[in-house]
Amino acid sequence: MKISIIVIGDEILIGQVTDINSGYIANVVRPAGWSVDSVATVGDDATAITTAIKAALKRTDIVLTTGGLGPTKDDITKEVLTKIFGGRLRLDPSVAENVSRICHKRRIKLNDLTARQAMVPSSCRVIQNDVGTAPLMWFERPDGKVLVAMPGVPFEMQSMFTNKVFPELLKQFGSRDFIGHRVALINGLIESEIAHRMNRFESELPENFRLAYLPTPGLVRLRLDGEGPDRKVVEAELDRQFEKLVAEFGPNVLWESDMKLPEIAIELLKKHNLTVSTAESCTGGSISGALTSIPGSSAVVRGAVVAYSNDVKRDVLGVNEKCIEEYGAVSLPVVEQMAEGAKRLIHTDCVIATSGIAGPGGGTAAKPVGTICISVITPGGTSVNHYRFTGGRSQIIERTVNTALIKLITELKKL
Amino acid sequence: MKISIIVIGDEILIGQVTDINSGYIANVVRPAGWSVDSVATVGDDATAITTAIKAALKRTDIVLTTGGLGPTKDDITKEVLTKIFGGRLRLDPSVAENVSRICHKRRIKLNDLTARQAMVPSSCRVIQNDVGTAPLMWFERPDGKVLVAMPGVPFEMQSMFTNKVFPELLKQFGSRDFIGHRVALINGLIESEIAHRMNRFESELPENFRLAYLPTPGLVRLRLDGEGPDRKVVEAELDRQFEKLVAEFGPNVLWESDMKLPEIAIELLKKHNLTVSTAESCTGGSISGALTSIPGSSAVVRGAVVAYSNDVKRDVLGVNEKCIEEYGAVSLPVVEQMAEGAKRLIHTDCVIATSGIAGPGGGTAAKPVGTICISVITPGGTSVNHYRFTGGRSQIIERTVNTALIKLITELKKL
Repeated sequence: MKISIIVIGDEILIGQVTDINSGYIANVVRPAGWSVDSVATVGDDATAITTAIKAALKRTDIVLTTGGLGPTKDDITKEVLTKIFGGRLRLDPSVAENVSRICHKRRIKLNDLTARQAMVPSSCRVIQNDVGTAPLMWFERPDGKVLVAMPGVPFEMQSMFTNKVFPELLKQFGSRDFIGHRVALINGLIESEIAHRMNRFESELPENFRLAYLPTPGLVRLRLDGEGPDRKVVEAELDRQFEKLVAEFGPNVLWESDMKLPEIAIELLKKHNLTVSTAESCTGGSISGALTSIPGSSAVVRGAVVAYSNDVKRDVLGVNEKCIEEYGAVSLPVVEQMAEGAKRLIHTDCVIATSGIAGPGGGTAAKPVGTICISVITPGGTSVNHYRFTGGRSQIIERTVNTALIKLITELKKL
Repeated sequence: MKISIIVIGDEILIGQVTDINSGYIANVVRPAGWSVDSVATVGDDATAITTAIKAALKRTDIVLTTGGLGPTKDDITKEVLTKIFGGRLRLDPSVAENVSRICHKRRIKLNDLTARQAMVPSSCRVIQNDVGTAPLMWFERPDGKVLVAMPGVPFEMQSMFTNKVFPELLKQFGSRDFIGHRVALINGLIESEIAHRMNRFESELPENFRLAYLPTPGLVRLRLDGEGPDRKVVEAELDRQFEKLVAEFGPNVLWESDMKLPEIAIELLKKHNLTVSTAESCTGGSISGALTSIPGSSAVVRGAVVAYSNDVKRDVLGVNEKCIEEYGAVSLPVVEQMAEGAKRLIHTDCVIATSGIAGPGGGTAAKPVGTICISVITPGGTSVNHYRFTGGRSQIIERTVNTALIKLITELKKL
């Protein structure tokens, strides 16, 4: 089953916010063998919204819209939907009740604008919003095509789509072909090298099977998709093909499922019952932030020291002053002492330490912007490496975070 | 001038990556009075790409595509463009030269797939890619409509669009109406309350002026857009209207330009020549990471301690053990001691400290998930507050980061 998504909102067209809802929807429907046919992003403009909705209803049986349901003047979606599906805007008591319930829970006093949320087209069936004030609206055409209008706030939209909208859509439209997938994270090879080695593999793939490449800084995600009417058959073929793929890359396979690097690190640390801390300079706490973003990370993450200034490197992490003067703050001896300092201070089994020049300033001829030193301590020993990354400040920081996590994961896999 | 954007790539449709390029383009073209008419996201599918391109060329004079130019099998954009604009794929020596230059710079050995990058439609004018191997392609129809195909890697696309593509488009299509905007960050009021108070203001706005609302956790961005042929006139009217708007919200106006919270904090710290550190528990280093993501932050950010475990709170930050036992780690006394500890240890003028329960686990009846304590030290004094946030783990962490930065900014503004 194919879905069209229409993302509504000036704030997205002008680049003030990024749409993460359509990607979320795609991930939720994929296991049922459903896929997103296309995503159209339009502003808070009646004509644009109308055109997009009509085109989408031509293309697919299911159309989902996100956004444009706020109580403020820049939101006109409800009026447009009433024009397209008929009926008129009328006050729905059950929605009014829900709105005041939500406002009460959030200690917000109800005002006439919030109350406006309770005005819904008479032509739709309301799906009550458990986590927000904007009601979801289910429109159905005589020919059976369905449009569901959902709020744009990611937290609301995601929880409502997963728990209410998608289950109802599944009931009505059933599940067609199964689409399964396998993901391998390949480290140490660039996309074109991988593609080169996958040439034969790809040409020999059965029909409805395909390989997709997703390069990220320091890592390429290889996704193998397989589609077919019989889930068992597809899964078995996926396993067979994925085995061949993994065998091809051997040591370059960092991980054999679609997990984020921090998730993988946390999982391995838990498995070996090890604790971790970080000593960060150029990454400024982003590695610790990434690790602690994972639920349950508190079982293994004990803390971190961000030693952005040299005084902190010396006074808190006990880095040798002479060492900093002699080799500079961005050097292998210093980053290694940072790691040892964190281990002493926070008493963890593993440590990640980073020091580097993220730019735009601070570069020299000998150590240009992008020069990065990383030290990783595990029960297996201590490693110290230096790298030279290209790109802007944010790319260099992201690349450093990923490279450090990949290094920790690689060491933990050896245990 | 209106632009259509077509985002090409299965990885985006299936939700494996999020498109940030179209938002970037919108921000680059806005000052020239140009705007994005719509964004269409399609997979690596010849029919879908063709349909999207033809529809876009009907709607606007300028069409930009991003992605689908990698050397791997899932990228078919070049073939599609050749079908639409005619000609045939031929090897372009200048591109081949550029590809080998880039590969050499990145210490990558050239293989036949990378070489495939040098195959381009004879019907296009090549714009050499300074930062990557995929050439940019400028297609022009007899009727003057232009399509520019750009790579999808954000770093490449953004640098090439800003430095080469947009300047050339400006030269050819000139700049029409000027669109200016003013942004106010409103703190302490929810969207509907703000809209309620803006009702009259909005109804009195001149033609081609509009107000847009962008709620983010703990903050609402109010954007006033004005459009007109004469830049001076538009700017003057924007100033007049913006003054009225700011006057309406008085103390709730946190900031009067469209800056990110960490940017604002860094700017104020620099202005008052103050240093800052953080002591983070539930935010795990994200506040420090956000501050150090800003270029030049090293002038004011000295470091941070992530005290995720109670031992670190006690041993590194010197939090009183009895205090933790009596009040719990998530309590006003503990978070205040965390802040004082960081001040002692890192010797900074200002400190942000956080302790809370981000969930999903760890909640109790007395302290449910979402209970957050924040302490902020500035030369103006020490503040300690507790909050109760709703949402999932990532929402709670994001809300805590924003609230802590807003608190620091508010205190710094008083100096």
